[in-house]
Amino acid sequence: MNLILLKPSDFVSDSVVRIDDFRFEHIKNVLKLKNGDFLKAGLLNDKIGTGKICEIGEKSVSFSIILNKNPPKENPAILFCAMPRPKVFRRVLLNAVCFGVKEIHFFHSFKVEKSYWQSPFLQEKSINEIVENGLSQAVDTIVPKIYFHKQFKPFVEDVFAEIAKTRPCFVFHPVEVRRAEPAFSDTARRVPTNGIVIGTEGGFTDYEIGLFAKNNAQIVSLGERILRVEQAVCAVL
Amino acid sequence: MNLILLKPSDFVSDSVVRIDDFRFEHIKNVLKLKNGDFLKAGLLNDKIGTGKICEIGEKSVSFSIILNKNPPKENPAILFCAMPRPKVFRRVLLNAVCFGVKEIHFFHSFKVEKSYWQSPFLQEKSINEIVENGLSQAVDTIVPKIYFHKQFKPFVEDVFAEIAKTRPCFVFHPVEVRRAEPAFSDTARRVPTNGIVIGTEGGFTDYEIGLFAKNNAQIVSLGERILRVEQAVCAVL
Repeated sequence: MNLILLKPSDFVSDSVVRIDDFRFEHIKNVLKLKNGDFLKAGLLNDKIGTGKICEIGEKSVSFSIILNKNPPKENPAILFCAMPRPKVFRRVLLNAVCFGVKEIHFFHSFKVEKSYWQSPFLQEKSINEIVENGLSQAVDTIVPKIYFHKQFKPFVEDVFAEIAKTRPCFVFHPVEVRRAEPAFSDTARRVPTNGIVIGTEGGFTDYEIGLFAKNNAQIVSLGERILRVEQAVCAVL
Repeated sequence: MNLILLKPSDFVSDSVVRIDDFRFEHIKNVLKLKNGDFLKAGLLNDKIGTGKICEIGEKSVSFSIILNKNPPKENPAILFCAMPRPKVFRRVLLNAVCFGVKEIHFFHSFKVEKSYWQSPFLQEKSINEIVENGLSQAVDTIVPKIYFHKQFKPFVEDVFAEIAKTRPCFVFHPVEVRRAEPAFSDTARRVPTNGIVIGTEGGFTDYEIGLFAKNNAQIVSLGERILRVEQAVCAVL
């Protein structure tokens, strides 16, 4: 937790915060801060500042804070990811948030098991937890927009195709080298606003790759090694 | 498991393999292969080839194989990582293996808890499992060299310093922007043989950063966002 993430309800006055939940525990037991110590905090979807602890007790901590600094610049890439297994979903979302992505799409594809869409991690409460965890890690406050698309074809033809008109979009597809897909080039990788499509474990089908290609995506490879979904997300971002 | 990793003892003749363990289960229940189907396999520290299943039963599978292809090129970077929490250690090692790194050093530093060195994940059997898992994922066969250094100063002065004479070495240190550490430059990041030093959760102390700097390391930042150790490893590699 490199930033204590605050909500408006945490403020007891314009510049004083009191918290008593897991953030308090973290400040007391992990950071081991005392009266007069400083900490970094930020208001959700707003600015960041340095707080000074006025009172730390058994059950809560109060600190004064002036929010005067902008959160870090957003990562202008858009991430599209085939819905992974629930455990991997959590890591992919966390990684995307930590890398500062502000628009994330999860979509269905042939090799996505239907049950993945029933995962408790997809409930709003759980997603908020993952997002807030990632923002606290990355010293950021801006919540990303997250979209879910349960049907592949309408997703590609309606949503993806529109976005792909506005920026280069790349599908990262682990392929046999002999099929000679182009590698993600040095030039392409220096465009920060790229759209990035990452597949499922098991990859996309030929039909799916074809539909992406038909809708303005470039199909590229990250090399001979096949990465895990969550690794590929970090590597590409 | 994108590659079935074989050991010499799995061969019942020059070109026929029989296996009956978790790899058999994977071939039968996940890949759902049948007689006559093809699979990719490779011999540990040796070549890769395509196998053809001759017999798949209730308890074992046999396939014929000719190993005629080299594993992918190694990643020539050297990774130095302060010993992370056991769970994170496992992910860092897996990530390094998947990205093809062949020389990995874990070292003690001030913010590493002594107990991390007692983790069962550091036992040879567990490390081999993680490594083989990573090689199977990345379609590779070459086992990396892994070194452990339980004392910080001798590690930096004797081991790191010698390596840092042979290649650029960078310490990735999340710093406040106002301290204006140089960012990892576009030019520097295109040298594939770089030595890469990643810190602990909690970072290096000023003394530690000083000792690295005195021993030919360049101290750089990855930007305002603070990444998790395992994310930083993927991002930098």
